[in-house]
Amino acid sequence: MVWNTNLRWRLPLICFFLEVALVVLFGVFVRYDFEADAHWPEEKRHRNIASDFENDFYYRYPSFQDVHVMIFVGFGFLMTFLQRYSFSAVGFNFLLAAFGIQWALLMQGWFHAFQDGYIFIGVESLINADFCVGSVCVAFGAVLGKVSPIQLLIMTLFQVTLFSVNEFILLNLLLVKDAGGSMTIHTFGAYFGLTVTWILYRPNLQRSKERQSSVYHSDLFAMIGTLFLWMYWPSFNSAVSNHGDAQHRAVINTYCSLAACVLSSVALSSILQKKGKLDMVHIQNATLAGGVAVGTAGEMMLMPYGALITGFISGIVSTLGFVYLTPFLEAHMHIQDTCGIHNLHGMPGLIGGIVGAVTAASANSQVYGYEGLLHAFDFEGTKRNRTTELQGSFQAAGIFVSMAIALVGGSIVGAILKLPCWGQPADENCFDDEIYWELPEKQENAIYHSEDPALKPETP
Amino acid sequence: MVWNTNLRWRLPLICFFLEVALVVLFGVFVRYDFEADAHWPEEKRHRNIASDFENDFYYRYPSFQDVHVMIFVGFGFLMTFLQRYSFSAVGFNFLLAAFGIQWALLMQGWFHAFQDGYIFIGVESLINADFCVGSVCVAFGAVLGKVSPIQLLIMTLFQVTLFSVNEFILLNLLLVKDAGGSMTIHTFGAYFGLTVTWILYRPNLQRSKERQSSVYHSDLFAMIGTLFLWMYWPSFNSAVSNHGDAQHRAVINTYCSLAACVLSSVALSSILQKKGKLDMVHIQNATLAGGVAVGTAGEMMLMPYGALITGFISGIVSTLGFVYLTPFLEAHMHIQDTCGIHNLHGMPGLIGGIVGAVTAASANSQVYGYEGLLHAFDFEGTKRNRTTELQGSFQAAGIFVSMAIALVGGSIVGAILKLPCWGQPADENCFDDEIYWELPEKQENAIYHSEDPALKPETP
Amino acid sequence: MVWNTNLRWRLPLICFFLEVALVVLFGVFVRYDFEADAHWPEEKRHRNIASDFENDFYYRYPSFQDVHVMIFVGFGFLMTFLQRYSFSAVGFNFLLAAFGIQWALLMQGWFHAFQDGYIFIGVESLINADFCVGSVCVAFGAVLGKVSPIQLLIMTLFQVTLFSVNEFILLNLLLVKDAGGSMTIHTFGAYFGLTVTWILYRPNLQRSKERQSSVYHSDLFAMIGTLFLWMYWPSFNSAVSNHGDAQHRAVINTYCSLAACVLSSVALSSILQKKGKLDMVHIQNATLAGGVAVGTAGEMMLMPYGALITGFISGIVSTLGFVYLTPFLEAHMHIQDTCGIHNLHGMPGLIGGIVGAVTAASANSQVYGYEGLLHAFDFEGTKRNRTTELQGSFQAAGIFVSMAIALVGGSIVGAILKLPCWGQPADENCFDDEIYWELPEKQENAIYHSEDPALKPETP
Repeated sequence: MVWNTNLRWRLPLICFFLEVALVVLFGVFVRYDFEADAHWPEEKRHRNIASDFENDFYYRYPSFQDVHVMIFVGFGFLMTFLQRYSFSAVGFNFLLAAFGIQWALLMQGWFHAFQDGYIFIGVESLINADFCVGSVCVAFGAVLGKVSPIQLLIMTLFQVTLFSVNEFILLNLLLVKDAGGSMTIHTFGAYFGLTVTWILYRPNLQRSKERQSSVYHSDLFAMIGTLFLWMYWPSFNSAVSNHGDAQHRAVINTYCSLAACVLSSVALSSILQKKGKLDMVHIQNATLAGGVAVGTAGEMMLMPYGALITGFISGIVSTLGFVYLTPFLEAHMHIQDTCGIHNLHGMPGLIGGIVGAVTAASANSQVYGYEGLLHAFDFEGTKRNRTTELQGSFQAAGIFVSMAIALVGGSIVGAILKLPCWGQPADENCFDDEIYWELPEKQENAIYHSEDPALKPETP
Repeated sequence: MVWNTNLRWRLPLICFFLEVALVVLFGVFVRYDFEADAHWPEEKRHRNIASDFENDFYYRYPSFQDVHVMIFVGFGFLMTFLQRYSFSAVGFNFLLAAFGIQWALLMQGWFHAFQDGYIFIGVESLINADFCVGSVCVAFGAVLGKVSPIQLLIMTLFQVTLFSVNEFILLNLLLVKDAGGSMTIHTFGAYFGLTVTWILYRPNLQRSKERQSSVYHSDLFAMIGTLFLWMYWPSFNSAVSNHGDAQHRAVINTYCSLAACVLSSVALSSILQKKGKLDMVHIQNATLAGGVAVGTAGEMMLMPYGALITGFISGIVSTLGFVYLTPFLEAHMHIQDTCGIHNLHGMPGLIGGIVGAVTAASANSQVYGYEGLLHAFDFEGTKRNRTTELQGSFQAAGIFVSMAIALVGGSIVGAILKLPCWGQPADENCFDDEIYWELPEKQENAIYHSEDPALKPETP
Repeated sequence: MVWNTNLRWRLPLICFFLEVALVVLFGVFVRYDFEADAHWPEEKRHRNIASDFENDFYYRYPSFQDVHVMIFVGFGFLMTFLQRYSFSAVGFNFLLAAFGIQWALLMQGWFHAFQDGYIFIGVESLINADFCVGSVCVAFGAVLGKVSPIQLLIMTLFQVTLFSVNEFILLNLLLVKDAGGSMTIHTFGAYFGLTVTWILYRPNLQRSKERQSSVYHSDLFAMIGTLFLWMYWPSFNSAVSNHGDAQHRAVINTYCSLAACVLSSVALSSILQKKGKLDMVHIQNATLAGGVAVGTAGEMMLMPYGALITGFISGIVSTLGFVYLTPFLEAHMHIQDTCGIHNLHGMPGLIGGIVGAVTAASANSQVYGYEGLLHAFDFEGTKRNRTTELQGSFQAAGIFVSMAIALVGGSIVGAILKLPCWGQPADENCFDDEIYWELPEKQENAIYHSEDPALKPETP
């Protein structure tokens, strides 16, 4: 098989095609919602809105900006730990996310905000689009270094669609709560990504092993990503919650969970090393598991100590995963998980769904207040008579639905991506920016698949 | 000519002189506006303001913080791509911006907020000062590596003044809208900077060529700058818009335009390289053009698909500029544009002005609502009878005025900066931190102009 | 003495013990305050709160996020300047802060928010916890490179307690104002840290001297920290101020002070170097002194020119400190201050306390308005009859109390940390990540204390 990584026509064509399609679809469907439309002064009068401050923009914009930073800098830089793949990590994350947020505005719009033939968007749509793309960034972590940007665009195209379907089932049919996406973003994204990488298994990946590690300064670049994810996660888990106490509470719960997670990650990292030394991979990744694990329950009355316990356990599970589970999955199940997403998004996502289900099931009007309980779980309309125990069961069902769609969808998309026409690199050319980028410096000791026409040296 | 880069007396003297002058002028003129003054509790009663939340601080502070990050980290780190000039890039940007925002508070204050002999400042003043300094950061990009910090302070002194004059003409005389500064910041800043660098043309700059490029990790530092500019641009374009729908809409338009811009920048970068490889320069710069290009129209009813089209075109124009136009301008017109600001701020700024003019001219009360139209374009008072077509013409006039002031002002300032007394480096010592900084490590293979007394090696 | 830096049991055990204790204490004591509790819909009715926007979350969350970034990225990356200690700098800062914010929620909660046997927390509690931990980050700067993570956790345990005691005395007994913590955070944190490092004096530290400096790219990583601290300091100084004008004013004062500080820091850095070259250490640190120095007076009617003067002086004092005082303290007083915290937090903290005292003493109802004066200084209840001159005296007393508690507390904690059982490195193994981290690359020319069992090479 010839691995042709010269993307000179394929990549531009797919980018142009996608963007033109987006423009047409936006032209047909997408409009500003009433809070972003110039009719707002009149709308305020009609709806008896006293102040401009009741515009949802002011409730959600600060959180939106933090989520935006998590998607582009958080994920983008977290993946720069690879010594020779940093350009691709941050650059391809940039590309897939820029495409993904546009496609998500349409997809999620059709499912959630379609009215009179139009999709009406506001700041909450932007947040939800960023969330959707977050699940693609998660999956990217599993295939990082082994795929071409074209494969990433295709994966984004399908994954955004599957995410929107899953989200619709969970939020609109099962009527579960998942404000921080433990199920819709992390569980779904991780198991989708793991399935894809399993299908795209590379038997000779060890030929690229020397590049599948960090160097001192690339670990520092990755810490930039880690810290922006860690610090802004309270915004992530509260960005789409109800105004008032729910946003406030989700911030507190996430803050607590992440703090506890750091301590248990550090403890495990040390105890599992012969000389007690810490491993940057754990500090970069496992410390974030607490944020994933309170995605669902963050806006619920989890209680601060409940958040601490959740974070504490997540850090342990995540670090154990990095040390034992990821190597096992690679050696025995052919799952080559570059970033260890199973340890940060997979297992903690499941924890998050479970914690959410339990917290929902044990909710009652004493803890929440009568009105508070109705408000927190939207027990109105069709959900009017749902008990909290039933809500808990639906929450749990949400975990299974997310997993199922992830596994089935991941298989289909993996099969599509396995076609040899997307410009993917040969097994010995993985984790190497040289393949897709004009690098400022020559890379020494490069071993290239000699048949790849893109890599034949230029005759001087 | 002797290039004396020892700044030991000149730099401190100019810093002290400027700061003392600023203190005196602030003492004479600058006061807190009523929302930042301790009389606020009484003012609230007088003005029938119900809640502290009506203080403009809450409407604008989150956006202000993002703009602040763009000026200091965004521009500062974007320019660290130069392998041996990162200290100067981020450090001199820090210096000129810290000086510039103080001088801008005065300058813009005299033009816009002068009342009873005082300049009253609030958070919107801080935003506008940051905006003004943004145009200096733009111009810095053209002369980066070839000027001393003293020249930068002088350039800032004059450019802030010219910016304020231009801004006054556009916003107060022509009564145009330019919330995101496509004309006042980007067009003005770019053509000013290009004029200055043309006047400061260095015939032997190729002697420093080996340093006028990046290395692997300096490109990553630059991506930090790129991403913070890209992510926070919605705040930049909405920070001074009307409360409510205008701020909300400008965020949505900018988000969309920037997303589309990424796809077309990547497409062009790939298609213009023989093997389809991407160039970090394009990913760092061209992907931002969409933000510049919706600076004017962002708060207008550009429609999401209109924003996508604008961003899409901007990415194409910008990348073509980097590949073809900048080398051409350097070879044939003696314009040595270090950062390619013409491609990110010049041409996209013109696009932004044009898009703004067209969008304004085609505005009507159906799209905006009757009240909305008046509100969006301030069609009241002296502007009461202005038609949207006339508004569009004035918008277009704003482009020309900005260009004119940039070219004339740039010529004058360029001539002043050409005086050989400002500590500028010789042609062979450009792009080199060693000139102005105590570096932690020795630079190998340094070639220095032997006459510069600042660079004679110390006798041991 | 045997320096055993193998932390394999001690570090995990202390992390587990601390976290379990925190979980238990949170379970017993910590609850959401009424604005984060699900009873909020009912509470709104009881308290006649018209809109969700009156939830303190919306007033303070944007500022909280900026403070959070300052603690984790600002301090964390500022300390990465050390060429071979960046992992420990950012990693240990992460650990001590994650532990510290949890412990601070309890400690400060017992002192300030204890009601009916519970500690009620909201976003302002999170901000105050971050503030408290900020003082630990300050102290960390003095001992950076010379302590183990266990020592840092112990230092955090005690320092958070001492901070809370000091804060209680100042804010609740002396009834002073110190919104930005010039006294409670910076003065206290710095003199505490300096006392600890004095007690932990290392006579043979010169054996590690070769690593106690930066390299080109570590100075750039540190600039990330510097800039995020600098840009977000307005949020830091306004985060807990009264709603409305106080928050707005503190932002303006801090913005101005920091801008002036940059100019005087650059001036001094240049004038004190033989060839006028700038020193990155000054640009990274002294430029921040202006923020420290308006911590107390920031929310007062300091006036913009007053803020400029304060910042201007702080930059001079700070840079002089770096050039002359820190070496003096090291050579003659055995104070090995790794980051020069005395120059950034110590002296500017004192300046801040003094400026606060003077500004308070000179306050009057003409400048503040009658109501404004009462509101600004909480002249109500027990403080009803306090004059501004008396307030000024109390402010000054606050400086002395903070210093006293810092010196006494620092001595006790220093003595505890001097015990040889905490896994601290030998004098020749300081400033070296290799001691506590699995590094991706081997360090050349490592000189290790041969007795340390943790550092014996593994037999192959």
